[in-house]
Amino acid sequence: MSGSMGTPVVVERPTLRRGRPRDDRLDAVIVSAAVAEVGAKGWGGATIDGIAARAGVGRGTIYRRWPSKTDLFQYAATAVMRPVEASDSGSFVEDLFAAVLPIADMLTRPELAALLPSLLAEAANDPSIRQTLRTFVAQSRQQAIEAVERARIRGDIVASTDAETLVDMLAGALVYRRLLLGEATDAAAVRALVRQAVQSCATPTSTEEDS
Amino acid sequence: MSGSMGTPVVVERPTLRRGRPRDDRLDAVIVSAAVAEVGAKGWGGATIDGIAARAGVGRGTIYRRWPSKTDLFQYAATAVMRPVEASDSGSFVEDLFAAVLPIADMLTRPELAALLPSLLAEAANDPSIRQTLRTFVAQSRQQAIEAVERARIRGDIVASTDAETLVDMLAGALVYRRLLLGEATDAAAVRALVRQAVQSCATPTSTEEDS
Repeated sequence: MSGSMGTPVVVERPTLRRGRPRDDRLDAVIVSAAVAEVGAKGWGGATIDGIAARAGVGRGTIYRRWPSKTDLFQYAATAVMRPVEASDSGSFVEDLFAAVLPIADMLTRPELAALLPSLLAEAANDPSIRQTLRTFVAQSRQQAIEAVERARIRGDIVASTDAETLVDMLAGALVYRRLLLGEATDAAAVRALVRQAVQSCATPTSTEEDS
Repeated sequence: MSGSMGTPVVVERPTLRRGRPRDDRLDAVIVSAAVAEVGAKGWGGATIDGIAARAGVGRGTIYRRWPSKTDLFQYAATAVMRPVEASDSGSFVEDLFAAVLPIADMLTRPELAALLPSLLAEAANDPSIRQTLRTFVAQSRQQAIEAVERARIRGDIVASTDAETLVDMLAGALVYRRLLLGEATDAAAVRALVRQAVQSCATPTSTEEDS
């Protein structure tokens, strides 16, 4: 299955199996069922039986693909990721907006909103889930960090600006609103955040151009 | 027990019971045991028996105080909070630093780091835990919002500055680092964050004074 908007991007499975070709559509159905099950019952309450019932498949169909609930969970977490496309428009505000909006969109999607708290709780106790999460986070911030570096090279921002601090503030505001305040951030609010962040490091000339 | 630094602040219990005086010290021991149990086993794996064993008390001692694991958990979440003292120094940077540093300190403490992911996961499914969390978050950001309002009145920041956006970026960076990157933020890094945030909204005169 290809990564068209609105459907999970199914990436290569960590536990790839040899044999007959995989039915990617069935994988996607099971992932959706797993996300719904964890969203409804939490990680502790979710069961393979419950996921099988939601997906309309037998337990064996799931266990043949993923040997444990943790394996399925980890795969599902990877499957709800969105790749952030690089944007190099020459404008720091626009590049940063293009890099941060997908993070906001991802956090707005019900399946990730349902999954993230359980993912964080599991990551605290399970090193392999923690690794999945860290990879996920590193990928989601990479384009924003590159946008800061390009702006630095162009002289649009103060040379000493710390890219990670800026990105932590932007991605942090989105995650904090979603997880702690229970609020989504729409495109207009993302733009407001980005403008505020750009303002914090812009050189005097670039500020006038961008505002 | 009083709220000296390094020990949990025990606030009024939601389920106050009449009868013989409560042993606050025992409450604190049980809360520490509950936090350790959830930290070690996650919310799903934590049991009252496990907490009782860690605390060196009987199950009944716990159940007399909190009728369920959820009640104890909710109390424990409240007990690890730190009140943020108001600071009105006349300097926006200093007031914001004084308001944000306790949030960073709280997130650095092992008991909250252990509890927060489970608290978030539980909050997704349990309205009363969600309410506890929201109250906690609202309290932790209040002093920072007031610091922004005072700076606005003094004319230190651009009049249109949105206090909540600024606080979301600061508290957000701290929470994001703790939960998603697994990093603590020390006082020097809090100061760097605060300076960056202040820079994003300072009026030209105040910027020169503060930097």
